[in-house]
Order: sequence, then C-alpha cells, then structure tokens
Amino acid sequence: MSFDRLQDQIIEKKNPTVLGLDPRIEYVPKHIQEMCYARFGRNLQGTVEAIYQFNCGLMDGLADLVPAVKPQAAYYEMLGWRGMEMMERTIRYAGNKGFYVIADIKRGDIGSTAQAYAEGWLGKTGTAAGEEEMFGADCVTLNGYMGVDSITPFMEVAVKEKKSLFLLVKTSNPSGKDLQDMKIDGKTVYQIMGDLTEKWGAGTAGKYGYQVIGAVVGATYPEEMKQLRRRLNKTFFLVPGYGAQGGTAEDVRYAFDACGRGAIVNASRSLMCAWKKTGGDGRDYQEASRAAAIAMRDDICRFVTIE
Amino acid sequence: MSFDRLQDQIIEKKNPTVLGLDPRIEYVPKHIQEMCYARFGRNLQGTVEAIYQFNCGLMDGLADLVPAVKPQAAYYEMLGWRGMEMMERTIRYAGNKGFYVIADIKRGDIGSTAQAYAEGWLGKTGTAAGEEEMFGADCVTLNGYMGVDSITPFMEVAVKEKKSLFLLVKTSNPSGKDLQDMKIDGKTVYQIMGDLTEKWGAGTAGKYGYQVIGAVVGATYPEEMKQLRRRLNKTFFLVPGYGAQGGTAEDVRYAFDACGRGAIVNASRSLMCAWKKTGGDGRDYQEASRAAAIAMRDDICRFVTIE
Repeated sequence: MSFDRLQDQIIEKKNPTVLGLDPRIEYVPKHIQEMCYARFGRNLQGTVEAIYQFNCGLMDGLADLVPAVKPQAAYYEMLGWRGMEMMERTIRYAGNKGFYVIADIKRGDIGSTAQAYAEGWLGKTGTAAGEEEMFGADCVTLNGYMGVDSITPFMEVAVKEKKSLFLLVKTSNPSGKDLQDMKIDGKTVYQIMGDLTEKWGAGTAGKYGYQVIGAVVGATYPEEMKQLRRRLNKTFFLVPGYGAQGGTAEDVRYAFDACGRGAIVNASRSLMCAWKKTGGDGRDYQEASRAAAIAMRDDICRFVTIE
Repeated sequence: MSFDRLQDQIIEKKNPTVLGLDPRIEYVPKHIQEMCYARFGRNLQGTVEAIYQFNCGLMDGLADLVPAVKPQAAYYEMLGWRGMEMMERTIRYAGNKGFYVIADIKRGDIGSTAQAYAEGWLGKTGTAAGEEEMFGADCVTLNGYMGVDSITPFMEVAVKEKKSLFLLVKTSNPSGKDLQDMKIDGKTVYQIMGDLTEKWGAGTAGKYGYQVIGAVVGATYPEEMKQLRRRLNKTFFLVPGYGAQGGTAEDVRYAFDACGRGAIVNASRSLMCAWKKTGGDGRDYQEASRAAAIAMRDDICRFVTIE
C-alpha cells in the first residue's frame, strides 16, 4: 500500500527519477509531426496524435530505466477534450509499459467535489453500465488550501485501491514564497501544510514507513527541503525543479532518507527536449532522452545510495 | 473589461445568482436518462448524453432569468474525456444562450504550466492549424497557493480577452479553516490571500470599479465575508455555500456593495435537483428549477437592491 509499489520500482531500477510528460507541440521532432499531419491532418487532431506518438516513443525508450512518469494535466487540457482523451491513452500506455503513473493535476475542492475528482482520477465512476475506470492513474498531486475535506475522498480511494497522493507543500517556483513562506507563530505556511500532510495520512504507512499522502517539495529550496525531511519522516517527497528550474543533484540529496528512499525527482523538459541539444533533426530523440535520463540518474546517485 | 460584462448581465436581469452545473447522473430525471440510453446505449456515452440533455434543459428554462452558469470541472472529469467533451459542448451552449460562463476549475501551477491552463480555458492554443479556442470559458476559478506566478498568465489572457478570474480566498466548506483561518502576525491566511488578490489585480478595474481578479468567499462565514467586503473594495466576490451548504440570503447580503453590485451567489444542487422536491417523476424539472431560481433571486433581493 501507500508508496510501496513506487518505492519497489525505484529500488528495482536503482533510479529515483520520474519522467515528466508536459508536452507542447514544439517539443515534438519534425518527422513525427509530419507523419501525424499526413495521417490525421494538419489540425488539432494531427497535433494531438503527434504528441501521443512522441509520448509513446519517449516511454518506449525509457521503460527499462525510469520507474515512473508524471503527465501534467495542463498540457493535455490546453488541447481541449482531444487532449484529455490522449492523456487517458498516455496513462494507459504508461501502465502497460510498467511505469508508475503520477497524474499532476493539483486539484483541490470541497468534499463532494473532491469525491468526483477522486473517482475520475484514481477510482471508478458510476455510469449506466456500472462502475468504470476513467483516467486510471496510480497517484495524483493535490492542493490542500481547502483543508482536509478536500483530501479525504482521495485518501479513501487511494487506500482502497493501493494508490497514493502528493500534497503541495513547498513548491519549486519563485513565487511559491508569496504565501508559503509567511510565518504563523514561528512556523511557515509550508511547514504547517507539511505537518497537516503527515497528520492527515496517519495510520496508512506501508512497508517502507511512508504514508499514503506524500508532499511536493521543490529542489530549488534545499535548506527548506532539509528541514522538511527531518520534520516529516513518514512523508514521501515528489521533487520538481531539478534541471531546467535550477535544482542540482546536491540539492535534491536532502529529500532522501538514510537508505536513499522516500523521494522521487522529476525532470520534464530536460528529458523531453534532450534531442534539441544534440544538433540533430530530432530523429535521435529516443537516444538523446535516454542519455539525459542516464546522466540524471548517475548525477543523483553520486549523492544518494538506494538500498 | 474585468467583471463589467457579468455585472451588466446581473443588472439587466436584476438577479445576482449563478447556476452551478455540477451534474451527477442521479440528478437527471429518469425520462431523460431512458431517452439517451435508448439512443446512445446504456453505457458511458449514454450517461454523458443524458447529463448534457439535462444541462441544456436547465439552461433553456433559466436563460431569461439567470445571468451566469458555473460548470464544475470535477463532474465532467469524473466521466473521463467524454465528460470533458461534454463540458466543452455545455460551455458553448451556455455562451449561445447568453450566459456568462464561469468554469470552476480551481487550477494553480507554476508559470509555464499556468500558461498552458490559461490558453486552454480562457485563451487560444497553438495547433498545426494555427490558434484555436478550446474550452472557451469567460472566467475561471483559481487556487493561489503557488503565488503570483500561477496567476499572471491567466491575468494576461483575461485582460486581453476581456475575461475574468476568481481566486480562492475564504472557501465555504467546514475544513476551509484548516489552513485559511491560521493567523500570521494578526492576519489570517484568507485575509492575506484576499490582500494578494487585490494587489495582483491592481490597475485592471473596469467601469464598476472591480478588478480582473475576484475572490471566492463562502456564504457560510458571514462575519468573515463582511470583513472581507470592507477590506477588498475592488474585488468581485463569487459566493458559494448558499442553500444546500447552509448559507442564507441574510448571510450573503454582506458580499454586495452599497449599490448591490460586486458579487454573485452560486446555487447548484438546490436548482438542479429542485424537481426531486415536487413529488413528481422529474418531467417538471424545468418548471421546478425555474421556481427555485425565482425563489432564490427574490430571497436575496429582499436584502440586496441592485442599481
């Protein structure tokens, strides 16, 4: 339960990283774009299919190497319902390839509404034909501004279906500080949110000691990460901000426990767009992203030994 | 610009309310369900079409009476991509009927990702065929936990396209207090978020004095609402929590300014499910929701005079 399945896969692959699938059409090599436009039209459908082919190609190239993928809902929603249909396909393809799928949706709403989101993303929805799985992710990211009501329905589904959640605690972006760094009686808002994460998840720890609710903690704030790691010893960390946003391997080491467990580091653009740095036309995108993923793994594993 | 178009419509209809479209299949009268199952199948597609017919019927019945609708994304996402396709159709239908459309999505993410969401929901997305409108809402709800980065891309699109936003400030649900009521140097988190809302929206006020970023302020906390109204005089309020959640007309009066402007009150279940209280089989759902919408308008207008 909880993060056991993800941690098992990280240990098996000796790689604590996740491939962020945040695709814009500009990231897709021209030959894939042209192939899809020829087949589906130089239109929205062609765009959607080109991105899907690219997602699949990246996953094919990394399936033996990387334990998880994190599709970011925004990049699918920006393509309307066709994008969401392709997100469903991407998640299914990822599952079939053995990836643990973290849907980066950052939802948060009142109880009844959170229930609907939880059914759609992690559980099953009642239709005229009975209960059906919709997006079918293994894990989602959530925003806790609305309190425990907004998390409980996800927690119930996650416990039942052996899935997991990440709550936004200390985010990687520069303006994360606007609210999160404010101090309340000597504690910052992000510390409070971290404490709530650990409190709300109480009693759900799996075999590695991590509860069903993890925390998003950005690589761009290593000092804060170090404090949070000490403070929250039952909380699995999802670490964005490595690479393009400026976080280094030395920074992210603090997210891990003494056994090199309890965290996974995301990279999106640096893996997806690796082909843009080889000087080629993108036909080598799988090799390029594979080389970047190996470099990232090795970079982090200089500081983190996974037991 | 800003909330001018919404306020104009509220004044024209003398009705400061919004119909929340948060449909579950259980809310749809049996005769509509059966008609759609016969035509599209007793399956997910049939379920989606039954909800769409119900949405359209509700809007047909209320178009002359109610100025705005607020589809809640969760209830569409829970039906997977077919639900999202139907959400697009619902928004388009609402626009054609003259409703101001507030997409209740409560998104919030780092700058580049917020940009993608803003394109998808309020603006246009680049595809192989050029720039295309996707969901095409007039307004969205957002979560500001990640700071100004996460709001700016929406603000830019909203200003350009004469659209608007609502930021979560003091939400209507019981556990909203978990984080929002914490005090920082004598100010609560929701007051801080309210102040940020007004600060971030500076310089965008329209003809009624309201800026492009409004605030979600729940009807279930009338004292807090009264304070926020005094504190934030350039901020339009979206008020959930009237009716089913316990907020009364007397409670929501404090959301309005002295001219009866600057706020809109949402009701979802009490309007959508009004037919369940008439003792009938749901064939009268349009009349029932119309009677409920008139009762709600009159209830609020006992306390609020719109000039």
